[in-house]
Amino acid sequence: MAARSDRSRVVLGIDPGTRVLGYAVVEARGGGSFRYVECGVVRPARTELADRLLEIVRDVGEIIETFGPTEMAIERAYAGKNAQSALKLGEARGALVVAARSRGVEIFEYAPAAIKRAVAGNGRATKAEIQERVSWLCGLASWPRADAADAVAVALCHVFGGRAAS
Amino acid sequence: MAARSDRSRVVLGIDPGTRVLGYAVVEARGGGSFRYVECGVVRPARTELADRLLEIVRDVGEIIETFGPTEMAIERAYAGKNAQSALKLGEARGALVVAARSRGVEIFEYAPAAIKRAVAGNGRATKAEIQERVSWLCGLASWPRADAADAVAVALCHVFGGRAAS
Repeated sequence: MAARSDRSRVVLGIDPGTRVLGYAVVEARGGGSFRYVECGVVRPARTELADRLLEIVRDVGEIIETFGPTEMAIERAYAGKNAQSALKLGEARGALVVAARSRGVEIFEYAPAAIKRAVAGNGRATKAEIQERVSWLCGLASWPRADAADAVAVALCHVFGGRAAS
Repeated sequence: MAARSDRSRVVLGIDPGTRVLGYAVVEARGGGSFRYVECGVVRPARTELADRLLEIVRDVGEIIETFGPTEMAIERAYAGKNAQSALKLGEARGALVVAARSRGVEIFEYAPAAIKRAVAGNGRATKAEIQERVSWLCGLASWPRADAADAVAVALCHVFGGRAAS
């Protein structure tokens, strides 16, 4: 992959969903080193889908304005077996992409296996393994919930350039 | 269905897509009567998907600000056989829903067969039949292209309250 600038930059990791969305903010410092900043979840009030999407866009917009990421990393959508789920996931992704691109944030996508490999060295790592590895890599005292841990994982995958953590 | 107010209101019909999106503006005047205002298509420049979605949101936002619709009618997404298509359609819908809801526009969905029945009296009408019927109903001198005609059809379906035109 291309050499990265050594200037530090803020990366936003997102685990998309319309019920619960995980987010993570990390500062990339060049050469794969990073500083963990924050992770958490956005849980839209359970109203109709249109309003949940709007809430997601507003909350993610606030996160972007607070932390000033220039890059957003998101899991590449895989078209699973269920078209109805794909449609819903697409709706969340469409809303998120707009929230990010309208603020000039570049979007990077990584395959699920690449994300798992990057943080756990294993493309088939379990949710718990991801939570554990992310906590260890970021020096967290406790495990973030799975959605937030997945968001940290995709952010770190981006920081590591899609390669496994050394 | 519930009685509608006789106050006229502007309805935006949308045929979603990330390559070509059809739109239509009609003024509903109560009791199923209406005035056709405009229809057309939005064709984002063929760059990456994120930028196409942003372009859609901006163009639809401009249409909303120009015509001031309070309601948007859109075809109910059906989860077809192809999950990859469902994902892409979802992305376009998510972006559109945000463009509309962020401006206070209410969103109404209609099943494809209900839309066809409303304008053509036949839930399995062809694209050409929809184009012809829409042109006749709106008094257009020529057929709009299929995407725009579909947008008129969903707007009229909403104006007619989901029932067939009389």
